[in-house]
Amino acid sequence: MKKFYIAKARRLRGTPFSSRIESQGLTAYTTYNHMLLPAAFEGTEKEYFHLKEHVQVWDVAAERQVQIVGKDSAKLVQLMTCRNLLKSKVGKCYYAPIIDEQGNMINDPIILKLDENKWWISLADSDVGLYAKGLASGLKLQAEVSEPDVNILAVQGPKSFKLMEKVLGKKITELKFFGFDYFTFKGNKFFIARSGWSKQGGYEIYIENREAGLNLYDELFSAGKEFNIKPGCPNSIERIESGLLSCGNDFDNGDNPYECGFDKYIDVESDINYLGKKALVQISKEGIKKKLMGVKIDLDKVEMMEEIPLQNGKSLVGHLRSAVYSPHFKKVVGIAMIKKEYWDKKTSFELEINGEKNKGSICDLPFISNDK
Amino acid sequence: MKKFYIAKARRLRGTPFSSRIESQGLTAYTTYNHMLLPAAFEGTEKEYFHLKEHVQVWDVAAERQVQIVGKDSAKLVQLMTCRNLLKSKVGKCYYAPIIDEQGNMINDPIILKLDENKWWISLADSDVGLYAKGLASGLKLQAEVSEPDVNILAVQGPKSFKLMEKVLGKKITELKFFGFDYFTFKGNKFFIARSGWSKQGGYEIYIENREAGLNLYDELFSAGKEFNIKPGCPNSIERIESGLLSCGNDFDNGDNPYECGFDKYIDVESDINYLGKKALVQISKEGIKKKLMGVKIDLDKVEMMEEIPLQNGKSLVGHLRSAVYSPHFKKVVGIAMIKKEYWDKKTSFELEINGEKNKGSICDLPFISNDK
Repeated sequence: MKKFYIAKARRLRGTPFSSRIESQGLTAYTTYNHMLLPAAFEGTEKEYFHLKEHVQVWDVAAERQVQIVGKDSAKLVQLMTCRNLLKSKVGKCYYAPIIDEQGNMINDPIILKLDENKWWISLADSDVGLYAKGLASGLKLQAEVSEPDVNILAVQGPKSFKLMEKVLGKKITELKFFGFDYFTFKGNKFFIARSGWSKQGGYEIYIENREAGLNLYDELFSAGKEFNIKPGCPNSIERIESGLLSCGNDFDNGDNPYECGFDKYIDVESDINYLGKKALVQISKEGIKKKLMGVKIDLDKVEMMEEIPLQNGKSLVGHLRSAVYSPHFKKVVGIAMIKKEYWDKKTSFELEINGEKNKGSICDLPFISNDK
Repeated sequence: MKKFYIAKARRLRGTPFSSRIESQGLTAYTTYNHMLLPAAFEGTEKEYFHLKEHVQVWDVAAERQVQIVGKDSAKLVQLMTCRNLLKSKVGKCYYAPIIDEQGNMINDPIILKLDENKWWISLADSDVGLYAKGLASGLKLQAEVSEPDVNILAVQGPKSFKLMEKVLGKKITELKFFGFDYFTFKGNKFFIARSGWSKQGGYEIYIENREAGLNLYDELFSAGKEFNIKPGCPNSIERIESGLLSCGNDFDNGDNPYECGFDKYIDVESDINYLGKKALVQISKEGIKKKLMGVKIDLDKVEMMEEIPLQNGKSLVGHLRSAVYSPHFKKVVGIAMIKKEYWDKKTSFELEINGEKNKGSICDLPFISNDK
């Protein structure tokens, strides 16, 4: 597969850590929320094995925050998501589908409640801030929408717990999954959540002071030597095997949250008010006609630039959305939107890549269940 | 300057022409509106000289359209821009700043009026569709917002006129600047505007039928041999010399349209209704404190990942936003946001890049005036 360079420009913003990761062996970038996101160092497969055994620090500053502040902030946040946030608590993270009035997906962020009137929406790749601005203006809400200079470092992998305890003290081990709190390092306070885009365990550090963040970055690598620490990035093998969905890859604005398997984050029962509720109520009655499932394909490599149709004879089974070679299964694993007629797991299909036909079969998500 | 690969994924969508340009010598991509945009073939400098003399075909499918249809569509489009569209005509393009309620820039698209109740907003790099959806929902407007499968090919350069006449007939030479109309090639209708992101003249072909578009693509290269046709892409040297601004590079949501020099596209006099009008009326009274200007810097190369401060002694002169080596001026030329105290063109400044200090001076935009 031919490789292409990325052209740099201010429009694809660097992060506070760009110069660090570039000197630590970075080889590839992707872009995310108008920012550079590291995509490879030693190679996805090597990084996969390392992530599952040791600890990595990821520059995920591209996971930007939409900050919403003001007396109508809770109302505005609730308007954008089908997850019921009425009983949400300060200090907790909520994975929540953001949908439009048609009930289709816009983003799948983590929503953080910092205060009764202050929220962060920690984004996947789309300008939810513009959606919030449009709504706030249209409805004349008292809610200020902005993008604060918050840059996230993720510390991921089974040894992340020992490393973070060593650097930040015992108290951080008491943080529950999807909880967050403030922790102090060398006199600076850091907002830290127990979260991250892998199932190997770990934390996300929301850095509000760039200089203090760089000091913490260096300390993590220094203290992490004994844990075999390496720089890393979201790993496509690990996240697909674990069934972690990727906005823009696995789903887009043509899909609704039921089709993505987000049923437990959809409230169509209570009387909360959000955009797209009417559409989702209707869908909940009628049922869905396609949904995301796992697929295994007899291939040893794959590259995705658009969805790829899956055929059973002349019939369309669905579309492959994400795929990667899995060293565990010794074949390509992927996430596909499968039509209802083919949800039976005995379904097999063919797909054409570069003029060659390949066979595959359907399975449940996740491929591997390994919550840490 | 170290180079990095771009990691491909469906989230950064390929275009109908990706396989064509990759086999025609593409070396680098950038991303734009969640899509791949070619960034280099033989190198920006070679491509610059070629563009100024011959003709190039650019895959600018990443210039996505927000389609707005419905009885309130004109109202919704006007709400988002400070340009007065009351007298806009079907069949014309309008360069128009999109702003938020604070009067700050969100995008600088071309707005195309296809019908009294049908508009396309041909985007720079931000999700204006989400802004439109938020507003339409908040205000309960009858306006359907979508992203149609429209993929633009730009034909740019002084020989674009001869080439397009050869392929599409004499009538296309009658198209006035920023006018558009439908033209037929092998039985397929193509929506074509006389526009494009260079000052070397040319057209943009809005392709609604992918297969017909690929046939036209191949015909352009076949018919273009006699005009020394090559694949190309927006050229940073040409666009900076010509003073064509780039959203996300030269300005962002921290700047207002006056500061970008968009005065002639701002209406604070009539009684049209748009978001941010109150803010712009206030700014028009008070005046601005910074604006975009040209700069020349004694350097023979530069790479931008974030804005770079320009200093005069201990005083901040402004920030460099875009910059490129210009073979014409034999130094780096750039676009910078300059503080009012320094608008005097005698101002010189220093800037630090990779630990080295370099000298520069301020000038007007454009560097070269060459409308075609």
